Amino acid sequence: MIIQKLKELGIELTETPAALGSYIPSNFTGNILYISGQLPVKSGKLEYEGKVGSDLTVEDGYEAAKLSAINSLSVIKSTIKDFRMLNKIVKVTGYVASAPGFSKQADVINGASDLFFELLGDKGSHARVAVGVSELPLNSPVEIEVVAEISSDYSF
Amino acid sequence: MIIQKLKELGIELTETPAALGSYIPSNFTGNILYISGQLPVKSGKLEYEGKVGSDLTVEDGYEAAKLSAINSLSVIKSTIKDFRMLNKIVKVTGYVASAPGFSKQADVINGASDLFFELLGDKGSHARVAVGVSELPLNSPVEIEVVAEISSDYSF
Amino acid sequence: MIIQKLKELGIELTETPAALGSYIPSNFTGNILYISGQLPVKSGKLEYEGKVGSDLTVEDGYEAAKLSAINSLSVIKSTIKDFRMLNKIVKVTGYVASAPGFSKQADVINGASDLFFELLGDKGSHARVAVGVSELPLNSPVEIEVVAEISSDYSF
Repeated sequence: MIIQKLKELGIELTETPAALGSYIPSNFTGNILYISGQLPVKSGKLEYEGKVGSDLTVEDGYEAAKLSAINSLSVIKSTIKDFRMLNKIVKVTGYVASAPGFSKQADVINGASDLFFELLGDKGSHARVAVGVSELPLNSPVEIEVVAEISSDYSF
Repeated sequence: MIIQKLKELGIELTETPAALGSYIPSNFTGNILYISGQLPVKSGKLEYEGKVGSDLTVEDGYEAAKLSAINSLSVIKSTIKDFRMLNKIVKVTGYVASAPGFSKQADVINGASDLFFELLGDKGSHARVAVGVSELPLNSPVEIEVVAEISSDYSF
Repeated sequence: MIIQKLKELGIELTETPAALGSYIPSNFTGNILYISGQLPVKSGKLEYEGKVGSDLTVEDGYEAAKLSAINSLSVIKSTIKDFRMLNKIVKVTGYVASAPGFSKQADVINGASDLFFELLGDKGSHARVAVGVSELPLNSPVEIEVVAEISSDYSF
């Protein structure tokens, strides 16, 4: 069902984006899956760059958050293989590289939140934290961290 | 007991503050409750605004952190109804919108930590992370994220 | 085995660094251990100070992240006593106090990630989030937060 919804929305899950350092894309404790911070990368290249509120508009930031969320889904998919094993998105932390005086971080991170809800319905509803930071890796405008719950039927 | 302590301290829990985007105020995985980031909002209005260290003093920041913590408790209360089901505050992450050169984030976030300990004693003792950020939603000086553990007697 | 590895690497675990506020160094929920944010402190004194990218080089930042990770291990050790009870490092969040325009947060936080992997092998592989922030407590260049999983044989 998620697969079909993704198709309807014209979203393609990609290869798991490469880690930028000596860590792994996701990690379990019990049936909680922590997904490493995701950037708005497509085909190995950062699609959006700079600070939201100066280099980029809120709308750009929204799209960057959406793409980062898609990358989080790509990581979940390559970890659990079968999306039916995804119980829910538990929490999203959204970091927005913000120009001085920019305070619409919530509107930017809605790009991730709206996607999860559109795709997954109630299972996509999540607790959330959105903050503005001064700098992000590779000069990315957004970084998204997801905590997900996997079915206890999943064989770990 | 918490209810009485709250009364003694003159603290009133309010309606759950409205979410600023397409997410929910709190979310469970197992008996862990993630509460969405809370701002120093009262009656739907931000009570403190600006950067700590320039627009606001450490004392203002402390009060803003305390009010954000009260809002986290309001969310917990409206989720689990009965405070006796609250096992403990597990972790607090405190974000302080900081003026350049301001490095007393720990003193600011004590406004949240002291409240939890005063109200809940050992159950209120928590692991903590305090950082300074450049900007927060709505130009808030503080944002508080709480992870809580709920009794396994709670019917989910 | 970890103890021996630590000796080989010339790393000494210290007393648990003092908390900077009214919180505790670590806290359990189930067998998940949250360790409070750790700074590059040694013998009670901050070893590195300032912003990475101006006051400090990437290499300095790497060492600061490593020292912060060692302090996280010190907290784990003083909590669970026996390192054999440590199942794995689940997640690392690394905050880098960044000079304007500095975007190599990933290289800095590798100082923590490399250490965990070197010491613990697969058990040290973790999910990770690395962000740049404007200010950290005490003007520290790095703060490291660790989530660890403890053996269910551990008597809580």
